[in-house]
Amino acid sequence: MERQFDKELNELREMLSYMASLVENMIDTAVKALMERKPEILGEIFNAETEVNKKHIEVDELCLRLLALRQPAAMDLRFITSAMKINSELERIGDQAVNISQNTANLIQQAFFTKFTIIPQMTEVAKVMVKDSIKAFITRDIELAKNILLRDNELDKQKKEVFRKLINSIIEDPAHAEYFIDLLLISRNLEKIGDHTTNISEDVIFMVLGQDIRHHHLFDKA
Amino acid sequence: MERQFDKELNELREMLSYMASLVENMIDTAVKALMERKPEILGEIFNAETEVNKKHIEVDELCLRLLALRQPAAMDLRFITSAMKINSELERIGDQAVNISQNTANLIQQAFFTKFTIIPQMTEVAKVMVKDSIKAFITRDIELAKNILLRDNELDKQKKEVFRKLINSIIEDPAHAEYFIDLLLISRNLEKIGDHTTNISEDVIFMVLGQDIRHHHLFDKA
Repeated sequence: MERQFDKELNELREMLSYMASLVENMIDTAVKALMERKPEILGEIFNAETEVNKKHIEVDELCLRLLALRQPAAMDLRFITSAMKINSELERIGDQAVNISQNTANLIQQAFFTKFTIIPQMTEVAKVMVKDSIKAFITRDIELAKNILLRDNELDKQKKEVFRKLINSIIEDPAHAEYFIDLLLISRNLEKIGDHTTNISEDVIFMVLGQDIRHHHLFDKA
Repeated sequence: MERQFDKELNELREMLSYMASLVENMIDTAVKALMERKPEILGEIFNAETEVNKKHIEVDELCLRLLALRQPAAMDLRFITSAMKINSELERIGDQAVNISQNTANLIQQAFFTKFTIIPQMTEVAKVMVKDSIKAFITRDIELAKNILLRDNELDKQKKEVFRKLINSIIEDPAHAEYFIDLLLISRNLEKIGDHTTNISEDVIFMVLGQDIRHHHLFDKA
């Protein structure tokens, strides 16, 4: 019985890892399409979204089945409820990638924005945060989870820099306001992806320690 | 035993109703501070946020306790996992209200934006969606839940109208670009609140019917 349950928990881990790799690719593709002006690759994002949505439902179903049939306690229970939460964070990261690609579709005809190299920089930070947050979950690594919480500031700072630059660009060149706003929204989408990874990290810390650090900023003192 | 469990489930309902009333007030106060230019009431939002965050943790703790001790099945199990999800949606609605108030703090010194009467209109729609989504949860009313899913389009349309108008305003008056962008972000915050209420509605439908309609748009055909 125990072995079967462990197998199921592993299946859950693998499903969430797979979802994470899908959403990382989605983020990558959305920003690559923008910076390299390749609208033809945007379609990949919508295919990946369909797959993420399918997994989103399957993970929830598996978690409910495990709660009902295995009646887990303590750490196993926290593992499954954390998996449900992380599942929903990953699905929302995928939504943010779709939002980026929608803002991209409009922008891609323009060339001037490629000077905003801070966008690919933010993308790199956000992608690594996604990868690391799932790694922290799989390996129950609370140090890595805490480290992700600290990295969130970096993304906030970068987004503020993008906002400042774009507002100046709009004032200088109001005819292109619409495109600058698309870029501004993309930087916000990337910042939101970071927020989702900090949610995942808080779930990991709770799962491992049984300690709810949300709204406490315990990590600041650690 | 059964009676004690029912009492606990009722407690959960009441906690979520209370959180919903807190976040409705937060939305109301944030937009009132903006439209009536009353920065002095913004402090109420931060007090309410502290309370919402406290409840957010308490609801999760209660849900975990019920899963561990009562080992619920079928509808009761779906009720508790839905409550956990709705809890997180409500907390995020509160975050959106905080975002609105942050964008408001900057804008409030200006007067011109009061002509954007579509912002209080969107607020009204969003607030009613919050109220109705929790009502649907408490009363297990799937018709009301489906109705909320349809209302989401309204908010999307209003936000698009705000975007169009604000981009024109920026082109005409680029010196105020920063403020127009604050308004644009507020309309986006309100749209996101609507998205959270549609997530709650999908959770309600799943809880009652045991049928996952997310990513299926079943309601369109209903």
